[in-house]
Amino acid sequence: MPDRFALNKTDLWSRRHLLKVGLAGAGVVGGAIALRTMWQPRSHSVHIPASPDQATVEPQGFTPLKTLRQFDYGTVTTENGRTVREFRVEAQTTTVQLNSATSFITWNLNGQVPGPTFRATEGDRIRVIFYNRAGHSHSLHFHGVHESRMDGIKPVRNGSVFIYEFDAEPFGVHLYHCHVAPVARHIGKGLYGMFIVDPPTPRPPADEMVLIMAGYDVNGDHKNELYAFNGMPHYYMKHPITIQKDQLVRLYVLNMIEFDPVATFHLHANLFQVYRTGRHLQPDDETDVITMGTAERHILEFSYRHPGKFMFHPHQDPIAEAGCMGYFNVVDRATT
Amino acid sequence: MPDRFALNKTDLWSRRHLLKVGLAGAGVVGGAIALRTMWQPRSHSVHIPASPDQATVEPQGFTPLKTLRQFDYGTVTTENGRTVREFRVEAQTTTVQLNSATSFITWNLNGQVPGPTFRATEGDRIRVIFYNRAGHSHSLHFHGVHESRMDGIKPVRNGSVFIYEFDAEPFGVHLYHCHVAPVARHIGKGLYGMFIVDPPTPRPPADEMVLIMAGYDVNGDHKNELYAFNGMPHYYMKHPITIQKDQLVRLYVLNMIEFDPVATFHLHANLFQVYRTGRHLQPDDETDVITMGTAERHILEFSYRHPGKFMFHPHQDPIAEAGCMGYFNVVDRATT
Amino acid sequence: MPDRFALNKTDLWSRRHLLKVGLAGAGVVGGAIALRTMWQPRSHSVHIPASPDQATVEPQGFTPLKTLRQFDYGTVTTENGRTVREFRVEAQTTTVQLNSATSFITWNLNGQVPGPTFRATEGDRIRVIFYNRAGHSHSLHFHGVHESRMDGIKPVRNGSVFIYEFDAEPFGVHLYHCHVAPVARHIGKGLYGMFIVDPPTPRPPADEMVLIMAGYDVNGDHKNELYAFNGMPHYYMKHPITIQKDQLVRLYVLNMIEFDPVATFHLHANLFQVYRTGRHLQPDDETDVITMGTAERHILEFSYRHPGKFMFHPHQDPIAEAGCMGYFNVVDRATT
Ligand SMILES: [Cu+2]
Ligand SMILES: [Cu+2]
Ligand SMILES: [Cu+2]
Repeated sequence: MPDRFALNKTDLWSRRHLLKVGLAGAGVVGGAIALRTMWQPRSHSVHIPASPDQATVEPQGFTPLKTLRQFDYGTVTTENGRTVREFRVEAQTTTVQLNSATSFITWNLNGQVPGPTFRATEGDRIRVIFYNRAGHSHSLHFHGVHESRMDGIKPVRNGSVFIYEFDAEPFGVHLYHCHVAPVARHIGKGLYGMFIVDPPTPRPPADEMVLIMAGYDVNGDHKNELYAFNGMPHYYMKHPITIQKDQLVRLYVLNMIEFDPVATFHLHANLFQVYRTGRHLQPDDETDVITMGTAERHILEFSYRHPGKFMFHPHQDPIAEAGCMGYFNVVDRATT
Repeated sequence: MPDRFALNKTDLWSRRHLLKVGLAGAGVVGGAIALRTMWQPRSHSVHIPASPDQATVEPQGFTPLKTLRQFDYGTVTTENGRTVREFRVEAQTTTVQLNSATSFITWNLNGQVPGPTFRATEGDRIRVIFYNRAGHSHSLHFHGVHESRMDGIKPVRNGSVFIYEFDAEPFGVHLYHCHVAPVARHIGKGLYGMFIVDPPTPRPPADEMVLIMAGYDVNGDHKNELYAFNGMPHYYMKHPITIQKDQLVRLYVLNMIEFDPVATFHLHANLFQVYRTGRHLQPDDETDVITMGTAERHILEFSYRHPGKFMFHPHQDPIAEAGCMGYFNVVDRATT
Repeated sequence: MPDRFALNKTDLWSRRHLLKVGLAGAGVVGGAIALRTMWQPRSHSVHIPASPDQATVEPQGFTPLKTLRQFDYGTVTTENGRTVREFRVEAQTTTVQLNSATSFITWNLNGQVPGPTFRATEGDRIRVIFYNRAGHSHSLHFHGVHESRMDGIKPVRNGSVFIYEFDAEPFGVHLYHCHVAPVARHIGKGLYGMFIVDPPTPRPPADEMVLIMAGYDVNGDHKNELYAFNGMPHYYMKHPITIQKDQLVRLYVLNMIEFDPVATFHLHANLFQVYRTGRHLQPDDETDVITMGTAERHILEFSYRHPGKFMFHPHQDPIAEAGCMGYFNVVDRATT
């Protein structure tokens, strides 16, 4: 089992590794990590309709489009015959414009809220090089199975690097988030993302998407004034997600809303199959409203038989109307 | 597939149809729709005990007894060899007395809160003629599968008619409610009801009942001050629901409470089988406390082996004690 | 079926029985019941690591250690060839110190919050002799199946005894709590506990533990200011629960938090199998975050492959950080 360490370790592997990722070694805190990422759409065998909406420039500090359909498989190498996926992320502080009236200081990864969706196959080795340049102490706590010292509950000071390393297991939908107290604040400021572990035999082809529900406590009263899917309030209302009629859609949905005890996810004019925590290959449930506590996440599968626009939102309507609402625009292949 | 339309369409089928339902045609907005409904108890093969309580006159504006055991199968016709069920409902504004101290202006269907329980068999064609005479814009959004233009998110202006038409699918427990923003307000004012789609092979005989949990924001503070099963706070405390010992009871339970994130449903001194969203014919779960987000609904089945009075209520006790609580009165056949 | 009765009944069986339990008969209210209990650890075939932490004296009024791993099987007798388990409990009022700044008047059983974990095998006869010496009316409402008059919704006045008697059924994880209104207050003050009914064929050997989440409304504002597992805020943070690496842990988890609509339970760096309400012998679900409404309870099973400290807490982080948080300390057998 390879060693793991933080920046203050200076053994050979560490030096070699850190050089590789663009740091001069222990003690170097000011330099930027060269952030190479391997974004790629997941499903090549499905048809993702083009859409004028989806050519829209993304708002400053948010990546609702990238978050929606792009997956970060990391930089892939082989060590001792085993796939290793290396992810380099940088905690930053970024002011973003939530709407025309509200700017908000986010704590984030790589300048984006949510952070990248890390994706691997069960059994891969995961290496996350976390460079904290956000000004406060932060950490990355992953859900899934790992050793105690990789659990991410220890704060990583500003200017420091910590390398999280563990096996991708078990397959399912997981998440990561900062675990520095008060956690609700660190999550609410934007330090979270999804971590998908695919089963050894991949799921059937589908138009795969990530939808993360989150809230914004804009005025610091421990309540959320705004909500969003994938970071930007009301984004998918203005920019509906174009999907193909009769094509399987696979949603990876996460409730990352703090301060509110639960959120439901409701899909209009349809039902979905539920794979709870993504832990099974056969559906556990079928419904159109599912209740999710904070940090719950599921795979939801469906397809639309009718073209047109269909809403999705929590059925707690005040949450929906404060920004956590969107449209699917179902199109015939002929019309795209 | 037959055409669907709103009142402003004037094609032949529309004119013929609207004449049939009692309107003179496009442009007629002032006349009342003749509201014929086919109320009927569902289960003829089960014994529903008589009860002095259940002969009680229902309070003004509420129909807890009718809601409990009566199902609206609509006016049935056959079109092209297929069963069509036509439901005619009228949005109204009605002031009701929630208790001796509190009157409340409801927005409702046919003068009752909840609205009628529509019931059909999977595959039937559903036609809901919605006439809005409530003074504000409203709509009917059905859960289940349907086309985009039948989704009911478009407000229907006061004085207008909209005809919702779709197939009853899939079998299960669904609901309908107004989808005009702010939705929490429109639901909280009373514009909701249940929509049951039976499987092609009916479920076994049982004493079938509808219990809808809802809240009342009496003072407009976006919190509920009163709660109820089937519209009337504390009604089933004062008028217990008489059921037969050892007889299967099938509850169709819906959580329609806005402003509170979830409600649980708890049955005393017993456990129930859970059919989540009514989507399966075999139970998914067995418990005595189930957590339901807003718009979640399930079939719960049980029977009592012991006679006597048994409570049911959310296990969030402040909700229960503010009106969402009731009794089953289990009787031996001999004693009724 | 033997008769059941409260203290004001004076038939033969009653007099004999009450004498046996240390009361002079009807009318005697001042004397203390001799509280003999049969505490015993459940699992003899598993290794429970010794720990300096676990030798710590328990704080006044709380029994987080006893609650954790000790089960009250009652005083066992046989009547007509059948196992009868008799439990004697006394409602008391006790002031406890929740932390260095906060004292709190609890209403409790036998001076402890939570009350004892009653445990039996499906089919046993349960007899709970409830002596109310707490100063207010209280009751014990058990979940599970029983007759109406054993349902515990009728207040038992201070100074009175009530004997609850019923069959232990069905197998699963149940609970008991006071059902005197306002119930949220009576539960919040500490009158609750777990009631485990084992299946006829026992579950496989495991290190079995009880974890009950509850809240404290310290200032009477109908919100909780402090939270705890097994009564004492932050206890398992300061005194981690030592468990054995690679050994099956079976948690009986109950959400007894009033005022908050739900709590999730999250385990770090691991997933658990979920047996919902303990009603099945095969798991229903697998995850690391489960949402539980008030009074929901489940069996969660897991084992750790890695040594070290791992947190558990609701993923509603403000609840966790206000006291409902703890550590497992996973040790190798060699190191204990
Ligand atoms: Cu942080
Ligand atoms: Cu409305
Ligand atoms: Cu009490």
